Amino acid sequence: MTNINDARLAQWHRIVFERDLSGLNDILANDIEFRSPFLWKPYHGCLPAFAILSTVIDVFQDFTYCRELTVGDVWALEFSARVGQLSVKGIDLIEFDEQNKIRNFEVFIRPANGLQALGAEMGRRLAEKGLG
Amino acid sequence: MTNINDARLAQWHRIVFERDLSGLNDILANDIEFRSPFLWKPYHGCLPAFAILSTVIDVFQDFTYCRELTVGDVWALEFSARVGQLSVKGIDLIEFDEQNKIRNFEVFIRPANGLQALGAEMGRRLAEKGLG
Repeated sequence: MTNINDARLAQWHRIVFERDLSGLNDILANDIEFRSPFLWKPYHGCLPAFAILSTVIDVFQDFTYCRELTVGDVWALEFSARVGQLSVKGIDLIEFDEQNKIRNFEVFIRPANGLQALGAEMGRRLAEKGLG
Repeated sequence: MTNINDARLAQWHRIVFERDLSGLNDILANDIEFRSPFLWKPYHGCLPAFAILSTVIDVFQDFTYCRELTVGDVWALEFSARVGQLSVKGIDLIEFDEQNKIRNFEVFIRPANGLQALGAEMGRRLAEKGLG
């Protein structure tokens, strides 16, 4: 799986670092389950996943992936970023389906104060888009 | 690295699921950095890491590892558990040193209400041990 993961990871980096929203739309499975760091209940379908991911790309500053564990169709991507004045770390836990689309996306954030700041800013921006 | 990771993972499972505190003590490097889901600042050294890990083993109920990504010396172990009435998911992001000891241990928890409940219970139990 090395080659396919190299290609998929390059594609994912392009989406994140070049804010390629068309590429983001293409890579999300229609029946994706998205699990946010705030709520237990998953979001079903690509519309909420797209809304959240396209928004968080703008909220995070100095976003960098650190250690990237890509084992077949399951990835754990460690990242660091800033939310306002606060530093955060996180994990994107991603699973691909047979069509090379993302079917599961789960986000973990630490520490608690950064998580809280991210939640406040995400709520504000999603509300501005009429998605609160 | 497959065989060494199979052996190390079996050892880690034994520590967690059989509450093998002597094994826990043995596997932590003296200069371990432990990063909790609550605070940005790491804890240095094996004493705080041991105190926190040995306590959280008792706080989590129905603890199960799910997908375990073990790539060389870096592991991302997905888990699920309960804290009181609340369900949580988490990632143990673990790095081994050359002596097969854990030199970095970083814990991510979602969602926010489970993280908060865990923090309250951990604070109570560590204070009981005089470690608050």
